[in-house]
Order: sequence, then C-alpha cells, then structure tokens
Amino acid sequence: MLGSAVQFSAQSSSAFLMRHTDPDYSAAYVVLETDAEDGLQGCGLTFTLGRGTEVVVCAVNALAHHVLHKDLGDIVGNFRGFYRELTSDGQLRWIGPEKGVVHLATAAILNAVWDLWAKREGKPLWKLLVDMDPRMLLSCIDFRYITDVLTEEDALEILQNGQVGKKEREDQMLTQGYPAYTTSCAWLGYSDDLLKQLCTAALEDGWTRFKVKVGADLEDDIRRCRLIRAMIGPEKILMMDANQRWEVPEAVERMSQLAEFKPLWIEEPTSPDDILGHAAISKALVPLGIGVATGEQCHNRVIFKQLLQANAVQFLQIDSCRLGSVNEILSVLLMAKKFGIPVCPHAGGVGLCELVQHLIIFDYISVSASLDNRMCEYVDHLHEHFKYPVQIKQASYVPPKDAGYSSEMKEDSVRKHQYPDGEVWQKLLAAQEN
Amino acid sequence: MLGSAVQFSAQSSSAFLMRHTDPDYSAAYVVLETDAEDGLQGCGLTFTLGRGTEVVVCAVNALAHHVLHKDLGDIVGNFRGFYRELTSDGQLRWIGPEKGVVHLATAAILNAVWDLWAKREGKPLWKLLVDMDPRMLLSCIDFRYITDVLTEEDALEILQNGQVGKKEREDQMLTQGYPAYTTSCAWLGYSDDLLKQLCTAALEDGWTRFKVKVGADLEDDIRRCRLIRAMIGPEKILMMDANQRWEVPEAVERMSQLAEFKPLWIEEPTSPDDILGHAAISKALVPLGIGVATGEQCHNRVIFKQLLQANAVQFLQIDSCRLGSVNEILSVLLMAKKFGIPVCPHAGGVGLCELVQHLIIFDYISVSASLDNRMCEYVDHLHEHFKYPVQIKQASYVPPKDAGYSSEMKEDSVRKHQYPDGEVWQKLLAAQEN
Repeated sequence: MLGSAVQFSAQSSSAFLMRHTDPDYSAAYVVLETDAEDGLQGCGLTFTLGRGTEVVVCAVNALAHHVLHKDLGDIVGNFRGFYRELTSDGQLRWIGPEKGVVHLATAAILNAVWDLWAKREGKPLWKLLVDMDPRMLLSCIDFRYITDVLTEEDALEILQNGQVGKKEREDQMLTQGYPAYTTSCAWLGYSDDLLKQLCTAALEDGWTRFKVKVGADLEDDIRRCRLIRAMIGPEKILMMDANQRWEVPEAVERMSQLAEFKPLWIEEPTSPDDILGHAAISKALVPLGIGVATGEQCHNRVIFKQLLQANAVQFLQIDSCRLGSVNEILSVLLMAKKFGIPVCPHAGGVGLCELVQHLIIFDYISVSASLDNRMCEYVDHLHEHFKYPVQIKQASYVPPKDAGYSSEMKEDSVRKHQYPDGEVWQKLLAAQEN
Repeated sequence: MLGSAVQFSAQSSSAFLMRHTDPDYSAAYVVLETDAEDGLQGCGLTFTLGRGTEVVVCAVNALAHHVLHKDLGDIVGNFRGFYRELTSDGQLRWIGPEKGVVHLATAAILNAVWDLWAKREGKPLWKLLVDMDPRMLLSCIDFRYITDVLTEEDALEILQNGQVGKKEREDQMLTQGYPAYTTSCAWLGYSDDLLKQLCTAALEDGWTRFKVKVGADLEDDIRRCRLIRAMIGPEKILMMDANQRWEVPEAVERMSQLAEFKPLWIEEPTSPDDILGHAAISKALVPLGIGVATGEQCHNRVIFKQLLQANAVQFLQIDSCRLGSVNEILSVLLMAKKFGIPVCPHAGGVGLCELVQHLIIFDYISVSASLDNRMCEYVDHLHEHFKYPVQIKQASYVPPKDAGYSSEMKEDSVRKHQYPDGEVWQKLLAAQEN
C-alpha cells in the first residue's frame, strides 16, 4: 500500500464568520494507492482552517511509514493493533499523545484506510459497519484507558442488543433518511435581513431544526435569537453555539439571559478541555431546560469518557476527523449508548457532512436504535468538491449508496486547490504580489 | 526581531529505556535575533523524542509571523495579549487549541522570548521573576478558562503574600539550593547489578530521594523496588513512575502490591488526559499512604485546573516545554498554591533541568514559600550541550547566576547535531546507507 499526502485548500468564503475568525476552509487529504488490480484508492482527510494544514501534512508524512507497503487485509485483520501502532509510535507519542496535530493526521490516514476497505467490500461505509459481525467490530477498537467505563464485554452486549430490529431500522433509514439540522442560517456577522431571508428559504425547504451562533455581544444575541425564534415559531427546535467564548460562570449567566428563547442546547460554552466546567454549566442550566453539548474539539475517547462520567453533557458531538477515525468513534458511540446520551455529530467544514452521515446512520441502526433528541448537523457548503456528495431530502441525510466513505474528492478540485501549486492558489498568490 | 528554527537532535543513548521505547532525545530549538546593538539572542526549545521534531519545527514556522519584526518591549509590555495572539491564532487554533504540536511550538517560541527578556535585564530568569512587580507578573498571564478557580484578584493576593520573607528565602536558595531527586538510578531495563552500582554512587553523592520506573512486569517491579528500598534504607524517599501504562482499576491493583515499599507517589499511573481516573486512583491510594503525581504530559492550564478541582493529585508536575512557557506556568503555580498542592517539576530530556530550575526557585521564593514535600527532578544527561549547564551540589539545584533562561545551547553542539545536515547526523545517515 502506498500513501501520499496532498494539501487541499478551498478558498475562504465571506459566509464563514465564526469564532475562528477569518478561516480559510482547508483539508489535509490523504490518498492510499495499492498494487491491486482493482485500481481502487483509499481517500481520507482531516478538516483544517487554513494555516496549519502544512503542519498536519507534515505529521501525515511522519506517520506514513506505518502504512506504506502494508497489506490492507493485514491492517484490518488486526485493526486494533494497527490503531495502537499509529497512536503509540514510540517517538511521535510524545508530541500528542492522541491529540492535536498528530491525532488529526492519524484521522486522515485511518479515514483513507476505512474508505479503501469499504470500496473493496463494495459497500458504503455505514453498510460495511452495519453488516459486520459484532466481534469483528470490537476488534477495530482500542479499549485502552476506557475499561473503567466500557469493557469489551459491555461493548459486545450493546452490539448484540443492537441486532434486534436492525433490518427495520435499515429500511427506515433508506426510506426516510437521518434527521438533520441546519447551521447555515444564523452565523455571527449576518445582517438581520440576510438572516430572515435564509430562515425563510430554510423553512420552505422543510427544515425544522436551526442553530444560531451566539457569544459575542449579549444585546446582539438577544436580538438575533428573538428574530429567529419569531421566524421559526415556538414549536421548531433551536440550538445555540458559543464556540468556546465564555468562562464557566459567564456561560451560566449568559445562557440564563437567553433561556427565554428556549434553546435545546448550548454548544461549546467554554474550553473543550474543561470537563468539570461543562459539568458545572450543565448542572446550572438543567432547571432552565437547557442542555449542554460539546465534542467537535474534544480530542480523544478519554475526554468523551469523562464528559459522560461527570454528567457534563446532554448531547455528545463527535467529529469524523478529530477523533481517530471510525475505530475511536465506535468506542464513543458505545460509551454514549451505555450512558444513554444522544450523539449529535458535528459537521460542516470540508467533507465533514460526507463522512459523519455514515457514522450516525450506523449508530441508529446498530447501536442507539433511537431518534429521540438526535440529529446530525448540516452545512450547505463545499460539497461540490466531492465525488459522492451528501444528499439531503426533507431535511434528512439520505443514506449514501456508493461504495466507500464518501471521502473522495474530485480530481479536478484537488488539482486546482492544491497548495501552493493549484491554479486557484497560483492566481491568489500572483494577485498578492501585484 | 527575527526568528529562526533549527532542529537539534542528540544521539540516542542506550541508557534511556523508557515507556517511550526507543527514544532519540531531540529538541526543536528557536533562536530570536534582533537588530539591537547588544547582539543578544533569545534561545528557546521544546524537548522531543526524535521523529516528530520536524512536525514541531513546522509549527514553529507557522507561528513565526507573530514574532517576526516585533519589538521586545511591545511584546513583554502586553505579554498577556501576545500569549493570546499565539494561542488563539484564528486558523491555527483549530489544530490545537493549546495542546500537542502547536502548544509545544508555542512553548519553544515563548521560552526564547523569556530568555531574551532576562538577558536584556541582565538577570537569570528566576531573579527577573522574583524582582518583578506582582502586577507586572499578572500581566503576563492569560486567565482565560481558569477564572472559576483563580481570578486576577486571587492571584494578586497570593503574590502579595509571597513578598513576606522573600529576601530570606532568596538568601536560603543562594546558600542551600533547591532540593532535587534523581531518576538516573532505576530505569526499566537496567540490570540489578547496574541498579546497585548507580544507587551506591548516588548515595555517596548525597542523594536522598530516588525515583524508580515501574509498570511492565509485576514480579520485576517487586524485585527492583525491594532491591532499591534495601539499598537506600527505610528513611530515604522513594517515588515510582508508571509512564501511563495502566488502566484505572489496574493502577490501583498494581500499587496495592507495591505499597510495602512505601512510595511517596505513583507518577503517571494512566492517561494524562484522565482527570477523573487520577481522582479515582488517588482516592483509592490515600489509605495506603501513596500520593498521585502527574503533569509532564498534561497539555495546558485547563487540565491542571481540573486535576486540582477534582482532588486528583497530591503532587503537580509541570513541564517547562509542554505548557505555554513561563506565562502559562505562572498560572499553574498560583492555582497549586491556592489548593495547597506542592509543585514538583518534571525534568530530564534535553534542557528541561536547565529551564525548570528557574521556575521552581521562583515558586519557592515568591509563591509557595515552602519546601515541604517539594523537590525537583534531576537527570544527569546532555547538560554538556548547554552554554550555562545546571549545577547540582549536595543533591540540590544551585540557582543560576548567568543572565537568561539557561536555554542557550553551545554553537558547536547545534552545528554538529542539527538534523539532517550536522556532522553527527551525516555520519549516522552515511552508516545507514552502507
């Protein structure tokens, strides 16, 4: 198996005014080529915000020797061992472990392995997972550091219970899709007019769940939340997202002032590392009927384990490119099931919707068996660069039918956006020089 | 101010058989040059284990634009703002935040800034800190995400209390030094004969505190702990270090079986991310009289805050190159003081002893005002590469007298060990080819 890393970078869009100001949506993109006659490629990525993508690519190259010249069958035949090899590389472990740049790079590589495996099996990834024997699924998971909460026996029991009614849930997904919510209407910095216009269009398209960004100016938050709640009416679901802006006491105070708009959750109220902080916020907001959600920047299963142990969240938000790919995400889905906490994945960015839909559809069919309080984020952006883009119908994700992890980009997009040689970049860089 | 990054890599030594098997002690080394007539350079580093150093160097380069062409006075005049600028770079924050590769790179850059500042002031760093007005010290700290435990007012009160008796403690440090312990005697993989020989020599040199590595084979641990306890006698202090080898329940079980050797602490019993795991282990080991220590791989002040909130540790181990330099370490020293938990720094590696001695001497003189249960790690290795190497007398760190942070390497060492062009590497690489 041969690996190569390229840096894809989409142009920044003025539509993206987030907590992370001035992002330039990018990705470190990994392509695995093999000497098999089928000519299949495994394509994996991790999302980035622009500068720093080269650091992740550098880490991919530092890890590449673990995957080069390996046989796919050997890798997936001992997937737990391979995961451990990548995450416990004797020298690289020091600059993690299992967090930040090296873990993002690990995710990109493992996403490519899963894409290749699913393509070899001729199935979309969600279906590969749904059809897989529970013991085989378990053999992909590294239980290290979580056995105090989830043993292999616990996990097996959960997966075996998940077999009951599986066929019906799969049929249900194929006909109805997985419920989504939209983040496209209410980013910070949008004018009230634009917000109204986008809400109107979203309502016409059948959206019933909306997320609004908050956390800068309180008066501005109140005005915008009032406006969106008036637009969508009292019955539809509203979530709020603070993108880590607040201190712990500040989060409680601010959300008390936004409670009248009946948010289902406040997302990322504070530092993603602050488990006990989230627990304190959660405890204070329960009487107001507001849940706490976090996860898109929680760096590994040990953090998720503690969020669950500490009753710190009412909603867990996994990210398909920050955790160590399907292997680590499986352990989080299983822990969430054990604690009865719904998983509502983070998406958007570059390709995150494409990937995470597979995971949450599998979660419903084989693990959670419930749609209560569950939904998957959707942002309508950059899908045109993907060979198998997401399909949304009636505000739901339609289960992908093509083999793989939907992570393959169009050749043309990669060529044009590759940094710094792609033509998009060449034009930008030339314009800067003039 | 100009910045340049070079990768220093010392040769691996067979003396270093750690949890991180096969390490090749290295560092990402940053030199800041200015256009001032004094010709002073700021030298900073972060320790690494070999592969992956190039990833950290890549991150240093990604952050370099924040420091290039800046004025030192402007940086330290708003040091909190500068720290925030580095750690909240709109695009780079996504691949952290404040953890892993980008935070190690931030540490290397900020260590160089502190070295330059101390050199400009003509003082060793510890003395710069001791003489600094408390309000000026506070202006270096980013209190973001820790105000629920330590406000600026709390911190000011601690520092003002620390002024009392400061002169006496400074004199005491200058005459007696700061107590150290040795990790050089009992690494995993040492033969019993070598262990006896090193213990004998250390006892002759006046060492009274010893650390032994444990966690592989239980029978082996028992034999080695028995041997070293017999060598040092019942009164001297013994610590144990498991380098993250165990699950939470396993840590309790294993330490119950090693309790008879009366360790003061068990260090890194499990994942450095597992705050609640350390709390559970700590609770279980209190009746056995064994404390829990961790910190060398805890990635930022938010983790330290929670270790204190959760009563998860009896000893906090800061690292001079993993946290965001003096700025972030100040916040940890102040939180530890508030909770009454002793700080016992991690050292060894490349240059960690050189740097951390400044911090712990400042801690004693201006913050903790106590030596109870306090000591700083010492490993006798690689000091010959530093221009101002540590001095140990009677098992204590002698306060450095030279201006700066003791982080400057000898030009000759950098030239010879720079990867991949240095002559040491050229010889190694040529030998590999033959």
